[in-house]
Amino acid sequence: MQDDFFDQLHPADAADHLENLPLEEQVVMVRGLPLEDAAESIAEMDSHDRIPLMTQLPPKLAADILTLMSPDDAADTVAELEPDIRKAIFRELDQEDAAEIKSLLMYDPDSAGGVMNTEILVLDENLTADQAITVIRSQVEDSEIPYYAYMVDQYRHLKGVLSLRDIMISPGGKKLKELLVEQNLIAVPFDTDKEEVAKLIARYNFLALPVVDHGQRILGTVTVDDVIDIIQEEASEDMQQMVGAGGDETIDSPWGYSLKMRMPWLFVNLLNSAVSAWVVHLFEGSIEQMAILAVLMPIVANQAGNTGQQSLAVMIRQLAMERFDRKKVWIAVAREAKIGLVNGLIIGLATFFGIILVFQRPGLAAVMALALLFDMLLGAIAGASIPLILKELGRDPAQASSIFLTTLTDSMGFFVFLGMAGVFLL
Amino acid sequence: MQDDFFDQLHPADAADHLENLPLEEQVVMVRGLPLEDAAESIAEMDSHDRIPLMTQLPPKLAADILTLMSPDDAADTVAELEPDIRKAIFRELDQEDAAEIKSLLMYDPDSAGGVMNTEILVLDENLTADQAITVIRSQVEDSEIPYYAYMVDQYRHLKGVLSLRDIMISPGGKKLKELLVEQNLIAVPFDTDKEEVAKLIARYNFLALPVVDHGQRILGTVTVDDVIDIIQEEASEDMQQMVGAGGDETIDSPWGYSLKMRMPWLFVNLLNSAVSAWVVHLFEGSIEQMAILAVLMPIVANQAGNTGQQSLAVMIRQLAMERFDRKKVWIAVAREAKIGLVNGLIIGLATFFGIILVFQRPGLAAVMALALLFDMLLGAIAGASIPLILKELGRDPAQASSIFLTTLTDSMGFFVFLGMAGVFLL
Ligand SMILES: [Mg+2]
Ligand SMILES: [Mg+2]
Ligand SMILES: [Mg+2]
Ligand SMILES: [Mg+2]
Ligand SMILES: [Mg+2]
Ligand SMILES: [Mg+2]
Ligand SMILES: [Mg+2]
Ligand SMILES: [Mg+2]
Ligand SMILES: [Mg+2]
Ligand SMILES: [Mg+2]
Ligand SMILES: [Mg+2]
Ligand SMILES: [Mg+2]
Ligand SMILES: [Mg+2]
Repeated sequence: MQDDFFDQLHPADAADHLENLPLEEQVVMVRGLPLEDAAESIAEMDSHDRIPLMTQLPPKLAADILTLMSPDDAADTVAELEPDIRKAIFRELDQEDAAEIKSLLMYDPDSAGGVMNTEILVLDENLTADQAITVIRSQVEDSEIPYYAYMVDQYRHLKGVLSLRDIMISPGGKKLKELLVEQNLIAVPFDTDKEEVAKLIARYNFLALPVVDHGQRILGTVTVDDVIDIIQEEASEDMQQMVGAGGDETIDSPWGYSLKMRMPWLFVNLLNSAVSAWVVHLFEGSIEQMAILAVLMPIVANQAGNTGQQSLAVMIRQLAMERFDRKKVWIAVAREAKIGLVNGLIIGLATFFGIILVFQRPGLAAVMALALLFDMLLGAIAGASIPLILKELGRDPAQASSIFLTTLTDSMGFFVFLGMAGVFLL
Repeated sequence: MQDDFFDQLHPADAADHLENLPLEEQVVMVRGLPLEDAAESIAEMDSHDRIPLMTQLPPKLAADILTLMSPDDAADTVAELEPDIRKAIFRELDQEDAAEIKSLLMYDPDSAGGVMNTEILVLDENLTADQAITVIRSQVEDSEIPYYAYMVDQYRHLKGVLSLRDIMISPGGKKLKELLVEQNLIAVPFDTDKEEVAKLIARYNFLALPVVDHGQRILGTVTVDDVIDIIQEEASEDMQQMVGAGGDETIDSPWGYSLKMRMPWLFVNLLNSAVSAWVVHLFEGSIEQMAILAVLMPIVANQAGNTGQQSLAVMIRQLAMERFDRKKVWIAVAREAKIGLVNGLIIGLATFFGIILVFQRPGLAAVMALALLFDMLLGAIAGASIPLILKELGRDPAQASSIFLTTLTDSMGFFVFLGMAGVFLL
């Protein structure tokens, strides 16, 4: 009955079902499942749930399950297990599987090698289309998504890529290598950043991209389903790291983990706001004479912060979506400056008249408008530049960028507004 | 020579090349290209560049190019053309193509119908595998990505999906309908939100998802390459709309467009900060007596704003990545509250001792710590709730959420901090 129920579920749904059970019941359920179903479902579980479950299973069963996962998923799972559990499981794996998983573990998890799938369909380029179809019919069950076949020479050097469609519609007697003529082969070395791989697949609408070693021998492929996960993960990373949350947090993460990821950045933010506070402190005398300054100064800081965050958001997405083009992105900073300038002029003018209307104080209105103009322009330039500077420094372009930005717009906004007020109004 | 150059380029690269030319040269270049290359390259251009180019081309040429695009791209292009240009082009289209494009134009562009591809491989479920392969060999050139074939009955009701692989590896005499036994068919009606389609494809690792009418007749498919674009667009939309930039802005957008998208939200932000300023204004008397309050109050607002943005980012990404589960996400608000509370306690305590150290004023330190604790907790709850409230109201969960959040944390932070200071310190 349990079998029937699981049979009707897609592995992703079965994984959700497992995740919602207590760990002991997960173990009981997995022990009762056909191995294939267990492997597919466990591969789809969140790692926060998958790792404890794999740790609880008898090593023999865990090994059998790993064997049936696709090697990339198996390696991802093994990578997170405690060393002693890992060792116990490796003792139960057959040598070939153990070697394959171990070799995948050696790649940087953020590289093409770290996300590639090694179950691929490799064909000798000297086969004919008909011979190829026979080979495919016999081999195909072992491959995860054999929508492409990879043509190699006798040394396994990658010579070209054909879709099953290409092979099916070609005249049966034609050699595969003849189908490769003038093909513009795109492959990536195993140490390419996985974000670059994702951008290539997105740009060229591929279903998979071959990964090669530095001698152009084929190692595996990154498939589009994994690319979707990479793109989603990177988008979460950017949005969350921008404000100092953990890049891999979700609402399913243990709350202590989220606490640990966020707190250091809240302390950075605290230090940064202490800097802005110190700027205000410099002008305490002015504020005592004219408390209205304390009323208006947060408006300056807020507007500039918001203006800067708009530029920041557009720039972070640019870096996430397109190949990095240094000249183009620095030119875009000028575009952001122009937008910030015009927005600053308009918001400044509106505020100028607003303050005259409410307080009848043209001097105060002028200082406020100028401070807004300056700080909004600064915000736009800083918002657009911070991710680029972080990138040029080899850091993540998003990390805490919003925190750095608002430190700058707060402190400079306070300084310019209170400073001009001190000079012109007191 | 021009032909040779373009032949070696992937359409996405050719599109970049075209985008970098002045409009007149784009026209000259397109007129010299084989129609097929022109169609593929223009389909890959940004719409900011594609529309002016299509507008400049002679209507006959534009029509020929549209005919060779995949129908979804053709419809997207036509949708943005000026009515008179559109009419002129429609006059040149053959009736069948015109009807197909017109029918696609009737779907909401944010729905499955609006992004689906109508060039699909439809097979009668009563064919045998061998017959199917013959049909495929003759039909396949017309279809964009025929990795799946769709089995239908005589009324074009969708009965099942088979991959080419399924068909290739099955015994030649077996009927297709026998291969469909126990298949768990997943299809979406044409009016499903495209984000839902993307989530389904991401979740189940499909390469395409069939789109049906309300009578379960097949209309088309959404393919994974389009899903990648949807996911990227939605991620940009969320990150940019969160701070009041245009959801579809890029660094390639005309700067006037970005200005127009951002300015209204900067005015909303201005109004919102006027509210917080008004709160401060209520306490002007306290500030005149104790200017240090003006020094410290931005710290409270900043910390709470940052805490809230962390919760906001995690919640927006949750809504972007997983199917909406009302109960689960509202429970997650409690998780965020817990994190905000503990972070508030720790940051509050650190600030308490910091202020005692710097100013030797325990009363001020206590007021500051309590205000921080309260406002950070509020920020976390508000940050997590705002996208959910917006969603429950049928709005975009991200739109201006960061602006609303900081309005709340600013004004409540000022109110609580200055209010407690007024009561306990003056
Ligand atoms: Mg899940
Ligand atoms: Mg891996
Ligand atoms: Mg694409
Ligand atoms: Mg995979
Ligand atoms: Mg990143
Ligand atoms: Mg990364
Ligand atoms: Mg482009
Ligand atoms: Mg067509
Ligand atoms: Mg469309
Ligand atoms: Mg997936
Ligand atoms: Mg398409
Ligand atoms: Mg959205
Ligand atoms: Mg949307």
